[in-house]
Amino acid sequence: MKSVILIVVAALSSQTCLGVKYEPNWNSIDSRPLPAWYDGVKIGMFINWGVYSVPSYSNEWFWYSWKGPKPDPRVVKLMEQFYPPTFTYADFAAEFKAEFYDPIKWVDIIKSSGAKYVVLSTKHHEGFTMYPSKYSFNWNSVDVGPNKDLIKYIFAYLAGSDVHFGIYHSLFEWFNPLYLQDKANNYTTQRFVKEKGMAELYEIVDMYRPDVIWSDGDWEALSSYWNATNFLAWLYNDSPVKDTVVVNDRWGYDSRCKHGGFLSCDDRFNPGKLQKRKWENAMTLDRYSWGFRRDASIADFLSMEELLETVLNTISYGGNILINVGPTGYGTISPIYEERFRQLGSWLKVNGEGIYATQPWVHQNDTVTPKVWYAAPKADKKAAYAFFINWPDNNELVLGAVSGSSLSGVALVGSNKTLTWETSGTGIKVTIPPHNIVEMPCMWAWSVKLTFK
Amino acid sequence: MKSVILIVVAALSSQTCLGVKYEPNWNSIDSRPLPAWYDGVKIGMFINWGVYSVPSYSNEWFWYSWKGPKPDPRVVKLMEQFYPPTFTYADFAAEFKAEFYDPIKWVDIIKSSGAKYVVLSTKHHEGFTMYPSKYSFNWNSVDVGPNKDLIKYIFAYLAGSDVHFGIYHSLFEWFNPLYLQDKANNYTTQRFVKEKGMAELYEIVDMYRPDVIWSDGDWEALSSYWNATNFLAWLYNDSPVKDTVVVNDRWGYDSRCKHGGFLSCDDRFNPGKLQKRKWENAMTLDRYSWGFRRDASIADFLSMEELLETVLNTISYGGNILINVGPTGYGTISPIYEERFRQLGSWLKVNGEGIYATQPWVHQNDTVTPKVWYAAPKADKKAAYAFFINWPDNNELVLGAVSGSSLSGVALVGSNKTLTWETSGTGIKVTIPPHNIVEMPCMWAWSVKLTFK
Amino acid sequence: MKSVILIVVAALSSQTCLGVKYEPNWNSIDSRPLPAWYDGVKIGMFINWGVYSVPSYSNEWFWYSWKGPKPDPRVVKLMEQFYPPTFTYADFAAEFKAEFYDPIKWVDIIKSSGAKYVVLSTKHHEGFTMYPSKYSFNWNSVDVGPNKDLIKYIFAYLAGSDVHFGIYHSLFEWFNPLYLQDKANNYTTQRFVKEKGMAELYEIVDMYRPDVIWSDGDWEALSSYWNATNFLAWLYNDSPVKDTVVVNDRWGYDSRCKHGGFLSCDDRFNPGKLQKRKWENAMTLDRYSWGFRRDASIADFLSMEELLETVLNTISYGGNILINVGPTGYGTISPIYEERFRQLGSWLKVNGEGIYATQPWVHQNDTVTPKVWYAAPKADKKAAYAFFINWPDNNELVLGAVSGSSLSGVALVGSNKTLTWETSGTGIKVTIPPHNIVEMPCMWAWSVKLTFK
Amino acid sequence: MKSVILIVVAALSSQTCLGVKYEPNWNSIDSRPLPAWYDGVKIGMFINWGVYSVPSYSNEWFWYSWKGPKPDPRVVKLMEQFYPPTFTYADFAAEFKAEFYDPIKWVDIIKSSGAKYVVLSTKHHEGFTMYPSKYSFNWNSVDVGPNKDLIKYIFAYLAGSDVHFGIYHSLFEWFNPLYLQDKANNYTTQRFVKEKGMAELYEIVDMYRPDVIWSDGDWEALSSYWNATNFLAWLYNDSPVKDTVVVNDRWGYDSRCKHGGFLSCDDRFNPGKLQKRKWENAMTLDRYSWGFRRDASIADFLSMEELLETVLNTISYGGNILINVGPTGYGTISPIYEERFRQLGSWLKVNGEGIYATQPWVHQNDTVTPKVWYAAPKADKKAAYAFFINWPDNNELVLGAVSGSSLSGVALVGSNKTLTWETSGTGIKVTIPPHNIVEMPCMWAWSVKLTFK
Repeated sequence: MKSVILIVVAALSSQTCLGVKYEPNWNSIDSRPLPAWYDGVKIGMFINWGVYSVPSYSNEWFWYSWKGPKPDPRVVKLMEQFYPPTFTYADFAAEFKAEFYDPIKWVDIIKSSGAKYVVLSTKHHEGFTMYPSKYSFNWNSVDVGPNKDLIKYIFAYLAGSDVHFGIYHSLFEWFNPLYLQDKANNYTTQRFVKEKGMAELYEIVDMYRPDVIWSDGDWEALSSYWNATNFLAWLYNDSPVKDTVVVNDRWGYDSRCKHGGFLSCDDRFNPGKLQKRKWENAMTLDRYSWGFRRDASIADFLSMEELLETVLNTISYGGNILINVGPTGYGTISPIYEERFRQLGSWLKVNGEGIYATQPWVHQNDTVTPKVWYAAPKADKKAAYAFFINWPDNNELVLGAVSGSSLSGVALVGSNKTLTWETSGTGIKVTIPPHNIVEMPCMWAWSVKLTFK
Repeated sequence: MKSVILIVVAALSSQTCLGVKYEPNWNSIDSRPLPAWYDGVKIGMFINWGVYSVPSYSNEWFWYSWKGPKPDPRVVKLMEQFYPPTFTYADFAAEFKAEFYDPIKWVDIIKSSGAKYVVLSTKHHEGFTMYPSKYSFNWNSVDVGPNKDLIKYIFAYLAGSDVHFGIYHSLFEWFNPLYLQDKANNYTTQRFVKEKGMAELYEIVDMYRPDVIWSDGDWEALSSYWNATNFLAWLYNDSPVKDTVVVNDRWGYDSRCKHGGFLSCDDRFNPGKLQKRKWENAMTLDRYSWGFRRDASIADFLSMEELLETVLNTISYGGNILINVGPTGYGTISPIYEERFRQLGSWLKVNGEGIYATQPWVHQNDTVTPKVWYAAPKADKKAAYAFFINWPDNNELVLGAVSGSSLSGVALVGSNKTLTWETSGTGIKVTIPPHNIVEMPCMWAWSVKLTFK
Repeated sequence: MKSVILIVVAALSSQTCLGVKYEPNWNSIDSRPLPAWYDGVKIGMFINWGVYSVPSYSNEWFWYSWKGPKPDPRVVKLMEQFYPPTFTYADFAAEFKAEFYDPIKWVDIIKSSGAKYVVLSTKHHEGFTMYPSKYSFNWNSVDVGPNKDLIKYIFAYLAGSDVHFGIYHSLFEWFNPLYLQDKANNYTTQRFVKEKGMAELYEIVDMYRPDVIWSDGDWEALSSYWNATNFLAWLYNDSPVKDTVVVNDRWGYDSRCKHGGFLSCDDRFNPGKLQKRKWENAMTLDRYSWGFRRDASIADFLSMEELLETVLNTISYGGNILINVGPTGYGTISPIYEERFRQLGSWLKVNGEGIYATQPWVHQNDTVTPKVWYAAPKADKKAAYAFFINWPDNNELVLGAVSGSSLSGVALVGSNKTLTWETSGTGIKVTIPPHNIVEMPCMWAWSVKLTFK
Repeated sequence: MKSVILIVVAALSSQTCLGVKYEPNWNSIDSRPLPAWYDGVKIGMFINWGVYSVPSYSNEWFWYSWKGPKPDPRVVKLMEQFYPPTFTYADFAAEFKAEFYDPIKWVDIIKSSGAKYVVLSTKHHEGFTMYPSKYSFNWNSVDVGPNKDLIKYIFAYLAGSDVHFGIYHSLFEWFNPLYLQDKANNYTTQRFVKEKGMAELYEIVDMYRPDVIWSDGDWEALSSYWNATNFLAWLYNDSPVKDTVVVNDRWGYDSRCKHGGFLSCDDRFNPGKLQKRKWENAMTLDRYSWGFRRDASIADFLSMEELLETVLNTISYGGNILINVGPTGYGTISPIYEERFRQLGSWLKVNGEGIYATQPWVHQNDTVTPKVWYAAPKADKKAAYAFFINWPDNNELVLGAVSGSSLSGVALVGSNKTLTWETSGTGIKVTIPPHNIVEMPCMWAWSVKLTFK
């Protein structure tokens, strides 16, 4: 009972922030409790879409790979083979049509995936805004190319659902001369920050009221250059999303993996141990890119087994997972992505009880059997889930981390067949009765629910 | 020894046709035995690619749906929304780039799929040739758009492999004025046939030496208009592929489903009963189109279960199956197609012994259990395979068509576990011992090999 | 009186061809009198327009200069600098928009120029037809690019005017594989001629009923390859324009400058002496190109003085002059061309009496004064005109070819001031009274009318 | 002598500004003497070039005519007929290729025209900078479209010549959201001014060191909004061009026609009377547009007579004339413009002595004869020039404003024939001896030099 009360209080304090006023320094900013919804939802969908979805090759760093200090020969070759020498990256924008963009369908895929939040890119390092930014004249999706706001419909169609809406935003822009000037000035000037970088972030909050702000592109400068704590103090004290918004930690190289909201640290962050702060594993279904790649092979995509292994590895250690899809320049989520997401949703329909609203258990993975992970429901202290990717030989699942003496029951989630167990070493050996293929609750990965005395 | 000799003789008779000279009439043409390789291979891959892969919407009849007598409002709307009013279909050709076309990768996918022949479109009803046709000046893939021969590398890279190379060719062209003139003349003139239609077919045979000619677009006229029997007599008597080539039946509305080589009849032809002549089920993985659709959803693609049901339904009745992929305008086989084809290949690796080189068994599907199909290996008269899509309840597979008295053995293909059986009614009941998921030989469909006394 | 009667008879015989039936051989074809209208009109406008008007660089041989046996480095460089390596010539067609094409304005310019016939290109060596040819599927101005018939409105808007409508047509096509095949066969085959070359010429006559057929692209083959005499026999005997049509001489290398209708011989043909047959000087205002050049300088265009010198040089020797304009890919006659043509028209308004309906005089140019040319009105045997480009020193024009004894009067055309003359050597010296600039009848060139006793 | 000394002093004070420090208020700014070179050169060339040169229709206000509050139906129709509905103005930039841009040729045309200064547009109201502005990321000629700096070569190739280099710059931008925000705030905010408008002007001065800054787009706000006096104080005190630069008066609606450097007031400003301050008539050769119009007719261009009438009307009243050319999107000065400019240059070669380095005479136009204008050489107080467009009847030029008693000589400029004069009323009647056309010094307009006792 006591813990339940505590949770309610925590929820109140984090959401209504009675009387709390955050100050623009990391101590104060970091003192804000993360709004509770975020830890509860576990699974998010990341959507990386931009002008790079037009060349749609190599990855979303296409421009940098082409014109940056160390050109990627493959990118250079593609441009030499298929484009005029005078072609510029900005010329791609006119070919960004998004003609098949169907936000209703996107929202259907999002909802079907089991993701409970979505993070949509509003601007990547290329600087192109996917909405009519006041600070990005003729370099945004209304002024050039698609001729529409690519953010607002997703935002609108998710409203009222249980899926939280979030945005991705890059602080820096590879080739923006204002940024390059500040950089050349050793970040002693902040013209870019004031005129574009942070100006747009305020604007985005105002226009789309995101529950997640996924900041990126911070790493070349200190958070003080970015005026990060000022923004966050405003965000937490005065913004329209002050009670619900969650941010990550990419607010400067002094901030990443240290300050802010949840820790995102590096891409595909997966620390393999418990963290003091809430963290997130942002990763991709296409191993090689966040943006859509027109030439991707099926082998480049994570299989469902690989995806679920990553999910379980993340959840068991207290992380959220943010699974990326790169839409096409013509506005679609391609079928291979849709298939993975819908399959994930079907898996979560069975196994979600051990995923959503859980927290790390005593053990995160098993002490004996590899590729077994644990999680415990927040709402039931007498239960835990053990997930496994490899179906056990002889249907005998050895769980070294579970003491038989405290156990009162074991069940295969999604099956109503009776499991038996016996003590095995310091742990237990669970015997799963035969399930033929149609009796199996799901494919790819399974969970047993452990009930304790 | 004896059987080897017999095979050689059979091969001689079908392939070299000693002394036989075919005449340009259907009786003579139809008298030619189908080269044996074709019935043996069962599984083919169909590749429909053309200028329609640029708009890549609705289906490969895009032009006709836009400008034909009954416009499809969706197509008209797309054009109105995203193209200038003066835009023409031929204007699309300049946007056909095929920049990621990688024939080595295509051939790898083809080979991995288990398909033993491929039918590549050289020209669809739009009239655009995918190779430098002499008869299609500036309306072919070298003169406009991709600026390369899209046929020759597939042809070349398959050479020496066990995959036969075939071509698709449309006799008519929706909007070719020469054709329309002949049509307006009630097909009493043949200018189109002589100058383009059949001229290109001779040219294709000469250039690419296909083992399959998959004719189409015949239906508005008689085979005599198309000079079909003349062509076939030449093909069978004098062409460089006279011994190996297989053709279908689409040579005029008097020919389709009657004359020629194998019967293809209608698209997705699946007669559900044995046929006197060899037939083929040409079908699509995308339910709605032969050409790539940029806006396709995952639900539009056949699942592996659906695909295998179609495969088995086809093979059991003596058909070949030709499974279609629509590549993209930028030259790729998209991952969802690649996934299906590679999964098919993995399934055939296990179950191919009951597919390739088989012939219909006494029964084609089971008399008691639905969705059970049979096939018998040509080389082993004492064996048959029963395929099933639904894993049987209680692991008990009832095969009403199999008499227990003649049976000497039953095995689950790909498993070394011992199956038992007992008489059940007029048939048998096979009990499959428990196979957990990792012991299963494959997913989606299974086969038991029946061995007879 | 006698001569007038003769002219009427000639006109009758050439136009109604009572009972004459031409045979398909040069003797017979050449026996046809040239319809009289042609010699009477003198001044024509040539319009060369096609896909080459899109790159609009170098000249209308752009494709050949790029991809032919001896590439022009400047053309190659342009393509390398501004187009993708895979770009093809046919890709240009999609960029041919003709969005400002205004045939009413064109016709106004034509009429204002004083030209009495116009020769419009229906197809150049590139093979692209500027009208919906049945024999040029998807390589014509309706199927790709402009999406309209670029011939018919000029034809229609000229109807009923005193300007005759003619067409330019290239027999050969540089890169048409059918042609190249015939050529490779040493012109022993005629597939190209039958399927495209001549097929289109019959079609054009049928569709647009031209009064002039300006044939070109003949020079690589004999007229027998082109079936030229067959065509001409049909044209003269049975076509809808049999009484009015005029053709040139470019019907094969045995024909050029020898057979057919008027002699066009080489481009800018200007023989400098009287010819037995009627001839024409087809020339360009842009010295370097028949097609529009986007990078042309003003110095590349003939000045009015240069143009008129060419006109007079041509007319005095019995030629017609066909003055070329190259319209833009966006469909306009650019102002510099319009200026020249309207100025020519203003000059002809004053001086046309010595141009139209004239014939060579006894002398063509003067025996003493350079750049003086003569012409005589057909309808007045007692008159002649002397044209001069250089205003004479001291206003004294010496005409060595004019005998003072036969002269009854001299007048400056367009002026009512009285001229005087006296014998000077074997000729005369005409004194022109002072004309200040506003009294001058015209600029650039002038004429005196000589009246004989 | 006295006046000569005064001029030297004025020159010193204006050019070296010994000890003068201008303050950011109009009184101080206006106190700066105009650098003397400007009044001396009289004739400038204006070059208006930008993204509007791609649609190249209607005029350079194309974007505003299409998307502004009162759309021009012709512009709307063009877009509807030839572009997709989703096409945006910024999409045009990718089609801006300038592939034939040849600054050496441009400079040759400039020099040949007799213009002694050139004003090149660096940015029009569309906001697109024709150079790599730091403040116009991806909306400048290097980042999108031409992929080159379109300013620097003209600047460089003019260096060391007698032609001064100037730039045109629009303060406001129709659709820049930063500007629209300031405007919505009643210009109480200056974000646009600081971040783009004036930032670029400082940048331009720094990069290209112009001798003329031709400001525009000022009229919706006060000069205080634009920080105009601050800029000008910097420009006059501290900029690299402080001694030579000349500016116009378009710095806010309180400034236009009042403050700054020379008065440009409205487009085609031609006050018809003497002005207290130096003024300029900026006008166009194409009557209807500053930008190139692809569909312009020859009648839309001023004739040489019309141009010279405007020149003379301007010079006689103390103005400079800035004659506009609109280059094409492909980078050329089209021949009709080149012709006019070279003809102007040829005229100035003869008549420039009465144009350059002159000042208004006692009378500006004649009191008796219409279309006669006067100018007086600064360096010779005893001379004046009378220009006339209409050649006088009977070669007798009546000059009512010239007193015969003070006259010592009259000469036709460019002719060495002797003119006579006699008193006529209060003026004189000059008799010009006969000049035939080759004796004429020039065409279109003429001048007599009057020498006084």
